[in-house]
Amino acid sequence: MLKGIINYSHYLMEGAVNKGDTVIDATCGNGHDTIFLSRLVGKDGHVFGFDIQDQAITNTERVLAQNGLTNTTIIKDSHSNFVHHIPVDKLTRLGGAIFNLGYLPGSDKSVITRSETTILAIEGILSHMKQNGIVVLVVYHGHNGGDLEREQLMRYVRLLDQKLYHVLYYGFINQKNDPPFILAVQKRN
Amino acid sequence: MLKGIINYSHYLMEGAVNKGDTVIDATCGNGHDTIFLSRLVGKDGHVFGFDIQDQAITNTERVLAQNGLTNTTIIKDSHSNFVHHIPVDKLTRLGGAIFNLGYLPGSDKSVITRSETTILAIEGILSHMKQNGIVVLVVYHGHNGGDLEREQLMRYVRLLDQKLYHVLYYGFINQKNDPPFILAVQKRN
Repeated sequence: MLKGIINYSHYLMEGAVNKGDTVIDATCGNGHDTIFLSRLVGKDGHVFGFDIQDQAITNTERVLAQNGLTNTTIIKDSHSNFVHHIPVDKLTRLGGAIFNLGYLPGSDKSVITRSETTILAIEGILSHMKQNGIVVLVVYHGHNGGDLEREQLMRYVRLLDQKLYHVLYYGFINQKNDPPFILAVQKRN
Repeated sequence: MLKGIINYSHYLMEGAVNKGDTVIDATCGNGHDTIFLSRLVGKDGHVFGFDIQDQAITNTERVLAQNGLTNTTIIKDSHSNFVHHIPVDKLTRLGGAIFNLGYLPGSDKSVITRSETTILAIEGILSHMKQNGIVVLVVYHGHNGGDLEREQLMRYVRLLDQKLYHVLYYGFINQKNDPPFILAVQKRN
């Protein structure tokens, strides 16, 4: 079967990220991706997870502890400030980042990611990323404000220089109710 | 690295097609996909290849012979007539089809695939396809008439019932000069 959106986002990370890499979970949410990334980079790698909501920080730290995963640092701050929280020796090993854009499932729908800070974060991450590193954006856009973030994000990634980056769109186009899709940006050799 | 369009089209076929299946190469062209499909289905499977141009038939039959691949039947006719050329026992094992839409590389750019016959062929193939079978469309659209075929095709696949089919768009969206992209239609369980 064709891979669904979440499976495919993990498949892309597996294809680009190596053991020992630093990775960023730009939107911890309920910690599902944080767990996946922690296992992906292994004991010599490190995950920096960001979220601006207390509930997300609490949930993520709890599931990490339940799974005995210690190669992680969870930070309550905007992902656009990532550079202030990652030591230089770890930043030079940045191999990937994942964003789940939209709102925290099961929480306040008025707290949403916004294109200005999302794009700031992507730009910063791309500038520090290793060659072949990847930024995977899982774009939920059915909520209030989601269409605006989607359009501004699409405009931004379409203009990334094709000599420096591959930009992939992966999505199911016959589904009702604004299903999420993937934008992936990979830094070329 | 993110898979390029041709690699990804083969990856999709590998994921859906089994040894012993019947598959359709709807546009033989220079025979590259025909060779790939012949190896994919193995000696108990069969490839039916279609093209309307003599040059494509000649080229494809030559490269198949050079590679000693005999589980193939190459037919000079429109792919929309596929059902008249495939025996029933083989049609019941139809697991996949691939289309390269556009014109024959290195040939007359005025001979192009057209949405009316392309869509007729897809509809027929989907109706005979096994569950989990896949139709992969590699959509070249930079030539004269390419934008029209692309738009009509997009409209058609977007309307396929999501309970019966998954329709995937896979494409690089920051490239100049109308690069090809993939539409894949998979029959659901």
